[in-house]
Amino acid sequence: MVKAYAPASIGNIGVGFDVMGLAIDQPGDDVIVRKSDNKGIRITLMTGDEGKLPYETEKNTAGMAVLRLVEHLDLQGIGLDIEVHKHLPLGSGMGSSAASAVAAVVAVNELLGAGLSKHELLPFACAGEAVASGSVHADNVAPSLLGGITLIRDNYTYDIHNLNIPAGLYVLIVHPAIKILTSEARAILKEHVPIKQFIQQTANAASFVLGLQKNDFALIGRALRDVVIEPQRAQLIPGFYEVQAVAMAAGALGCSISGAGPAIFALFEGNSSVQEVGTAMQKVFAAHNISSNIYVSPVNEKGAVLC
Amino acid sequence: MVKAYAPASIGNIGVGFDVMGLAIDQPGDDVIVRKSDNKGIRITLMTGDEGKLPYETEKNTAGMAVLRLVEHLDLQGIGLDIEVHKHLPLGSGMGSSAASAVAAVVAVNELLGAGLSKHELLPFACAGEAVASGSVHADNVAPSLLGGITLIRDNYTYDIHNLNIPAGLYVLIVHPAIKILTSEARAILKEHVPIKQFIQQTANAASFVLGLQKNDFALIGRALRDVVIEPQRAQLIPGFYEVQAVAMAAGALGCSISGAGPAIFALFEGNSSVQEVGTAMQKVFAAHNISSNIYVSPVNEKGAVLC
Repeated sequence: MVKAYAPASIGNIGVGFDVMGLAIDQPGDDVIVRKSDNKGIRITLMTGDEGKLPYETEKNTAGMAVLRLVEHLDLQGIGLDIEVHKHLPLGSGMGSSAASAVAAVVAVNELLGAGLSKHELLPFACAGEAVASGSVHADNVAPSLLGGITLIRDNYTYDIHNLNIPAGLYVLIVHPAIKILTSEARAILKEHVPIKQFIQQTANAASFVLGLQKNDFALIGRALRDVVIEPQRAQLIPGFYEVQAVAMAAGALGCSISGAGPAIFALFEGNSSVQEVGTAMQKVFAAHNISSNIYVSPVNEKGAVLC
Repeated sequence: MVKAYAPASIGNIGVGFDVMGLAIDQPGDDVIVRKSDNKGIRITLMTGDEGKLPYETEKNTAGMAVLRLVEHLDLQGIGLDIEVHKHLPLGSGMGSSAASAVAAVVAVNELLGAGLSKHELLPFACAGEAVASGSVHADNVAPSLLGGITLIRDNYTYDIHNLNIPAGLYVLIVHPAIKILTSEARAILKEHVPIKQFIQQTANAASFVLGLQKNDFALIGRALRDVVIEPQRAQLIPGFYEVQAVAMAAGALGCSISGAGPAIFALFEGNSSVQEVGTAMQKVFAAHNISSNIYVSPVNEKGAVLC
């Protein structure tokens, strides 16, 4: 029996639509795998999913990830039982699908003694995540697996890089209790970006990377402005701009939508007031009759781990 | 009398449309300024412009830059005579308009003992360059003035940053003897960018910055792929893709259009074969009955200088 943990992640980080992501310490998903005499890959138990996730291996992100890994290892005759213990909220924009797929491949890699590196495991975790998102995007899988702040230059060749994590960078996530389907959040996006916004976003994404590499919090703050995706998706989250304004007024470096939402993230230099800011943001949601949870964390540097 | 030199520059650097630029050592423009008892700002001599640039102060990039600087200094009653000695080809995509404006403000700043920093001179040089380009873009002005490889996060606040210059980075420019007006090169650009290309270009621009900061030539090479602007402007340069293919086959990290063209730039790790590659690229243009000049240089680190 092997157990692995994979953390939540923030896809896009505002200015890096489909190309950036970062991991936080908690919450995360646990996956337990065991060899079985019964041939085949099975999801034998799921907890924390409110009965909403499919047990069919091919439709389950953890199941599909393991299927693809086992195919790659040419071990199709093997028998594996998989338990998925979800602590990540579903459909939150916090990388729930990715975390289960990541934990599953890390656990199976260990159980079978396959010896693949984390980087080598990326394609299989991505194949699992794609079951939920409909296409291969590593912006949650990469940080959940590798840890840190990741930049995906290219999804097809897994040309993925860990960015510098400035000391003292803290992450706040406020997750309002509303549902947004990733497919819906994608469907509302326009097919084209006006060239002016394209230029601004290019400048901000490049400057965000520069700010991280130089530990320049002021630049990180000025660069963390999503002028392309956020304006289109904000409408899906009641009170978004009010919540964002509270964070910015309280000194957040930046505040935007985590992945496809509805979770909202904010980055901070230092953690002295982060919890209080989160509480203030929750109050805004409460005024819209929306309950919410908050998570405060440094950037997770380890990614998925055996436990 | 004060004389200043400002170097040529490569706007956009392919993946940083309107937001990145880099300076090379040669060629560049010289500007000589003298105080005069006759009130007013005058262009008294221009050389190297083939008689094509206007002497009217407000229509001349050097003249307008000085006008704006003098206004800022509240010295409207002053008399200044300006000589512009152009060594940069006009309409080449090598930052000719910017270099004259930059050299002019650097010279006048010294002549008048104004004591402005280079960063403080940016707005005036940009105002001068805008006379030629029609709008304020610092992607040539910033590198020509400051030197190095510059990232412009924001044109309005002059939020401009010098990127790391990896040791051994060399620049080749091939300038074919054809004319492209910047206004024409802008006019053919579509108003919108497909979201797929937007994502790719964001990833490449961010990765290009990361590659520079980490001295990672391989990453610089993979990132230096313009999937948005180059495909639209390549048609303006006969033989562009053949010339680019020669550079890439010879080991260039990347090769694209310098600014609005028609000059083509390529970046290299080391300079052992750069001259030969340039000659091979010239042969392709020659086969299209187009003569060309080549320039080989490290990245210029000083920017504009007094001389």
